[in-house]
Amino acid sequence: MAPSAVPVLSHRCNAMHNRLSACEASRKIAAGELTAEKLTASCLERVAERETDVQAWAFIDPDTAIKQARLLDQQPRRSRLHGIPFGIKDVIDTHDMPTQYGSKIYEGNQPGCDAACVAQIREFGGLIMGKTVSTEFATRQPNKTRNPLNPAHTPGGSSSGSAAAVADFMVPIALGTQTSSSIVRPAAYCGVVGYKPSFGLINRAGLKFLSESLDTIGSLTRTIPDAALIVEELSGLTPTSFEGVDKLRPRIGLCRTPWWNAADDASKANLEQAARTLAGAGARVADVTLDDSFAALDGIQIELSSYEFNRALTFERTHHADLISPHLLGRIAAGGKVTRQRYEECVTATRQARQRIADIFRDFDILISPSAPGEAPGIDSTGEPIFGLLWTLLRLPCLTLPCGHGPSGLPLGIQFIAASGQDKALFLNAEWSMRNLQRD
Amino acid sequence: MAPSAVPVLSHRCNAMHNRLSACEASRKIAAGELTAEKLTASCLERVAERETDVQAWAFIDPDTAIKQARLLDQQPRRSRLHGIPFGIKDVIDTHDMPTQYGSKIYEGNQPGCDAACVAQIREFGGLIMGKTVSTEFATRQPNKTRNPLNPAHTPGGSSSGSAAAVADFMVPIALGTQTSSSIVRPAAYCGVVGYKPSFGLINRAGLKFLSESLDTIGSLTRTIPDAALIVEELSGLTPTSFEGVDKLRPRIGLCRTPWWNAADDASKANLEQAARTLAGAGARVADVTLDDSFAALDGIQIELSSYEFNRALTFERTHHADLISPHLLGRIAAGGKVTRQRYEECVTATRQARQRIADIFRDFDILISPSAPGEAPGIDSTGEPIFGLLWTLLRLPCLTLPCGHGPSGLPLGIQFIAASGQDKALFLNAEWSMRNLQRD
Repeated sequence: MAPSAVPVLSHRCNAMHNRLSACEASRKIAAGELTAEKLTASCLERVAERETDVQAWAFIDPDTAIKQARLLDQQPRRSRLHGIPFGIKDVIDTHDMPTQYGSKIYEGNQPGCDAACVAQIREFGGLIMGKTVSTEFATRQPNKTRNPLNPAHTPGGSSSGSAAAVADFMVPIALGTQTSSSIVRPAAYCGVVGYKPSFGLINRAGLKFLSESLDTIGSLTRTIPDAALIVEELSGLTPTSFEGVDKLRPRIGLCRTPWWNAADDASKANLEQAARTLAGAGARVADVTLDDSFAALDGIQIELSSYEFNRALTFERTHHADLISPHLLGRIAAGGKVTRQRYEECVTATRQARQRIADIFRDFDILISPSAPGEAPGIDSTGEPIFGLLWTLLRLPCLTLPCGHGPSGLPLGIQFIAASGQDKALFLNAEWSMRNLQRD
Repeated sequence: MAPSAVPVLSHRCNAMHNRLSACEASRKIAAGELTAEKLTASCLERVAERETDVQAWAFIDPDTAIKQARLLDQQPRRSRLHGIPFGIKDVIDTHDMPTQYGSKIYEGNQPGCDAACVAQIREFGGLIMGKTVSTEFATRQPNKTRNPLNPAHTPGGSSSGSAAAVADFMVPIALGTQTSSSIVRPAAYCGVVGYKPSFGLINRAGLKFLSESLDTIGSLTRTIPDAALIVEELSGLTPTSFEGVDKLRPRIGLCRTPWWNAADDASKANLEQAARTLAGAGARVADVTLDDSFAALDGIQIELSSYEFNRALTFERTHHADLISPHLLGRIAAGGKVTRQRYEECVTATRQARQRIADIFRDFDILISPSAPGEAPGIDSTGEPIFGLLWTLLRLPCLTLPCGHGPSGLPLGIQFIAASGQDKALFLNAEWSMRNLQRD
């Protein structure tokens, strides 16, 4: 099974099944109106058409995917994931596909087993269509993927391939990971839904660790119910019903964050306009100003995670430093200078901030803030993580929705944040918001 | 490099260097009085003499170890670990030695990189002498290792080989892991020092996860300063000075725990006698009774960890169920029945208990409790984890010291527990206690 950058596909299919959401496809498969094979073939056809431009995949093998789809079509339906094709960010192990962590050090690396989340997807009848491109060890060094909406722009990182593949209708769901802003930012840049669950919802066995106290597995999808679908199956959360969601009257905190000046004018105006629209639709919207103690938490996220990078990547930095990018080497070296005492101060400050944010959520169902400083920049960078650092550090569930456009016509995102463990409230209030923003 | 169960060694050496603690050996190496080669040869000689009876090693290759020791002798001293041989529990990845997780599923499995802690040890000049036997995925199914003090008895589990190798003077330090009682119990059964750090002190990248919210890497050593040595080097904690330790006057809580009746008479009498001895030596000793809310936490530890086992081992249970022991299959199946709601209730109860125990530690420097229900039972089991479940669930640092003997003449342990993050206080107060107990 050799990797092929641009798969050649013999199963042509023009029904646009690849544009279905996972929930829609799942209902059709359950109703006998669609097969896993047709859905997968449609997705693979899209990959074949577009991969040269988008380069979302680190590994994909169409023949094996089709064979697996046929097998699934012969089996009883195991769950709502049955027959749904998935992209898996290439920092998550797969026993039958190379896992290269976005690094030259691991070219052709073949793990001996699936990560827990991958094995669970297969157990539930999901189909692993391929591995999506990650930046180097899920950090900031750009990899080959382009923004499918404009190849001169970055798809964002580090879940670059996952965001691009979902945005470009190559696959309905891809798993991503976030340590700073690595799901939310690429989702915003590519115009899809990016969801980072509460810390601890999706099991991390078989994830290549970067910062074990922050690394979180989540999803890139085109709809909020699809984000709910995958986390519910993997964690055992009961299914969220979106019926009656229009009757909600969310308490929304408009949180400009201490980093508001990092956002460009379009993003600022976009968020404020969204707040007005949501208030107009019936939400109770109020400003939330984070006190000064929050302003240092971006730096604390960086110190804390760098201390962990330095240790987690010890093998790589001691054996293969020549194959690590200068940017990451710099982060690793900085992490080596963070003393244990300073690390513990960061942990303590973080714990205190988690308590303070829990107090703020007594008055709000969700906060909204920018997803990124603006639209996707050029391909020389993967953009700035500034609007993800705080929420990831606080281990809160967050979700970005496409809303509005920047000066180049690329999408902007709005980030929704809920209290720890309130992932269902996040889905419902974000869905209510999405419907009202799209109505606008 | 083929594994050899009983290494044949050509470098004989009768100086008993293998009986040195890591700190003593480190000082001698620094002073030019000992070489890594001589120390390693002495350890390997002990392995050659004893491995047939003890079976502590999953993999060991004497020739490579000696070559590495010679290389280290030619290099400038990199840290206090320079030239010190280590055993590594076989659930922790090594790039140059097979890592089999104590499971037939992974016979001959060769990871592509070192776990963070292994790469760090090598970076600091430590020598990885071999892999020590783990029970199946660090759970309870016995593996081949025997108690070096009496081969009719278990060494305990799951860090069976690490405890036995250190107790039998095959190596001064071995890494172990603990999810329930897997460092403390085998250390107590084999009569050595077992130390489980505060959660988050030793990086876990490259550890095979069982229960990611509890799994903790720690050490088995013959002295407390050796336990301090390894965690300080890996985490960056400043070195603990044991000078002046005799002047301490610890505030010690005698904590019989809600599971006191699980302890046999010898263990009960032993702990109470130790408390009297320590009080006689100047400690302020008072009873600590954990309120009823703590009594359910053993069951909560089991539910919470089983939910995580079920997910972490999804690949193994879906592909290789025939190679998993009935006991572990039972735990995995039970974990599949723990709902997400129940899991979250367990998490909430645990968080509340962590707060309550923090309050208790305002009045005490350390608590003491049994390390295990009694001395090592026969080889059909690895003993009961009951006296480890609570402390591991609460993520507290704990350390067992050998103290007293059971009816068969095998060692008993006393467990010392400190508040979260108070690992230095644990070392100092446990060292004070050890000195006074040995004087008794």
